[in-house]
Amino acid sequence: MGRVTQRVRVVRIEPDAAREREDRLAVEEPLELRLGGRAHAVTMRTPGHDIELAHGWLHAEGVIAGADDVLRAQYCAGSVIDDDTGTGANTYNVLDLVLAAGVVPPPVRGSFTSSACGVCGADSIETLSRQGRWDVALDSSEVSTELLLSLPSRLRNEQRTFDATGGVHAAGLFDLDGRALVVREDVGRHNAVDKVIGWAILRGRLPLSRTVLQVSGRLSFELVQKAYLAGIPIVSAVSAPSSLAVDTARHLGLTVAGFVRGASLNLYAHPHRVRT
Amino acid sequence: MGRVTQRVRVVRIEPDAAREREDRLAVEEPLELRLGGRAHAVTMRTPGHDIELAHGWLHAEGVIAGADDVLRAQYCAGSVIDDDTGTGANTYNVLDLVLAAGVVPPPVRGSFTSSACGVCGADSIETLSRQGRWDVALDSSEVSTELLLSLPSRLRNEQRTFDATGGVHAAGLFDLDGRALVVREDVGRHNAVDKVIGWAILRGRLPLSRTVLQVSGRLSFELVQKAYLAGIPIVSAVSAPSSLAVDTARHLGLTVAGFVRGASLNLYAHPHRVRT
Repeated sequence: MGRVTQRVRVVRIEPDAAREREDRLAVEEPLELRLGGRAHAVTMRTPGHDIELAHGWLHAEGVIAGADDVLRAQYCAGSVIDDDTGTGANTYNVLDLVLAAGVVPPPVRGSFTSSACGVCGADSIETLSRQGRWDVALDSSEVSTELLLSLPSRLRNEQRTFDATGGVHAAGLFDLDGRALVVREDVGRHNAVDKVIGWAILRGRLPLSRTVLQVSGRLSFELVQKAYLAGIPIVSAVSAPSSLAVDTARHLGLTVAGFVRGASLNLYAHPHRVRT
Repeated sequence: MGRVTQRVRVVRIEPDAAREREDRLAVEEPLELRLGGRAHAVTMRTPGHDIELAHGWLHAEGVIAGADDVLRAQYCAGSVIDDDTGTGANTYNVLDLVLAAGVVPPPVRGSFTSSACGVCGADSIETLSRQGRWDVALDSSEVSTELLLSLPSRLRNEQRTFDATGGVHAAGLFDLDGRALVVREDVGRHNAVDKVIGWAILRGRLPLSRTVLQVSGRLSFELVQKAYLAGIPIVSAVSAPSSLAVDTARHLGLTVAGFVRGASLNLYAHPHRVRT
C-alpha cells in the first residue's frame, strides 16, 4: 500500500508487560494545490487519489462545475533530494491544476513562502520548529501508565454534551496528578483543542509545561502542532495518531500516547516521560 | 445547556418497530471572526467559549503570542430579526477582536459578502441553496432499512487502510442496490468525501441521483453541503449528525440516517425515502 500506511516502532503497554513492537499508521502528508502554477492552498491528507481530492474540493468551493472546467492536472515535475538516498525524488505532494478559460479561481488560502516543488512532512515540521517559542524537548514531566490510562474516563466524566448527544469531540488539559484543569467540547476536534489552549492564553499560563493534553479521538499533525506551540509535553489520544503527528512529536520532543483504551496503550514518541 | 444541544424529532428504527421520538444533537453554528471590524474567517463550531476559541486559533496561526496581543474581544452588538418571535436577537455568532498595536493580522480566509451582524445557520443554508444546481428534494430514490443497515460493514469491507491502522476515515458511494461505486479513505473526513465526489466528477456522473453516501464517522454541515452540491439524495453516518447537518438536510431535501449500528438507526430528515 506504499505511502498510505507507514511502519513505526512503538512501546506497547499491557497489564502484564511493556514491549517494543511494530505498528502501522495512516500516512498524513501535506498536499499543495496550485492553480495555473500559483500556490493556492495546502491541506493535510492521506496520499492517493489526489486529483479526485482536488476536483471534489474545488467543486464544493463552487469553483468548478464539472471535469471540463479543469484542462490539466499534474504533479509538479521537479524533485527534492532525499536525505537518506541522496537522490532526487518527486514527493507527489504538489499538484498543479490548469483551469479552463472563464473559470474563476477562488481567493488564495493562506500564505506561502516556498516555491520548491517537493513539499513534504519534513518541511511542515521544520516550519513549525521555527515558529515555536518553547523547547518542549527539555520538559522533564513524568507520569505513570496508570495516570494516562485514567484520563479518557476523566475526560468523559467532564463531557456533558457527549452524554446528551454522543456527537462531540473533547479535549482536556490535565496536570501531572491527573486533575482536570479545563475540558472543552466541540463538533470540531480542532476547535476543542483551540478552546483549551485559548483558556490557558487568557490566564497567562503559557507555556503549558507539566501538563497532559487528552483528546477524545484521533491525533493529527495539526493537534500536535497546537500542543507544541503551547508548550504541552505530553499528548494522549483515545484513537490512532497519524504518521505526521508521530514524526512531528519525535522531532520536537513531545511524548505521544495513542489507543489509550481499557488497560493498554501505545507510546509512539518519547516514552521516557511515562513510568511503566 | 442552551445552545450547546438541540432537541429534534427523529424516527428511531429498531428490529421490532419504527417510532418517532426525541433526540438531542450537538449544536453546530457558524462563527464569524472579525479583526478590527473586518471579516476574517468563518468556522463552524459548537457555541460557547468562543473567545477562548479565537485566542487558541490565532495562537496556532502564529498571530498572537499571549493575551496582551488582544486588546478587546466582543460579540457584534447588532441583532437580527428572529423569524419565530419577530423580535431582534443577537446570534452571538460574530466575534470581533481588536489586536494590539504591532500585531499583524493574518491574510483573510475566504470571501465574505455579508456585513450583517447576525450570521447564523439559516444563512449558511440559504447560501448553499443558491449555490446548488440540482433539486435534490425531487429525487425519488428509495432504499430499505436493511440496505442502510448493511452499508457500514460494506464500507468496512472496502477499507484496506483502516484494517492496517485503525486510523482513517472512509466515505463510500453506493447505488440503491447497495453496490459500492467507490470507497475512499483519508486521515481527514472531508478529504474522503472530496475524493468520492471528485471520482464522480472525473467520470461526468454528476448529479449523483439514486445514490447513498455512507461515512464512517459523524456528519457535519460541511459533509451535507458536499453531498447536496453533488446531487446525492441520501446520506448515512455511523455516528451522530450535528444540528446544522440535520437542519440543512431538512431544508434542502436530503434524507439523513445516523447512528447506523447493528440492527438500528435514526432517521433525522426526509424519512420517506426509507422503507421500513
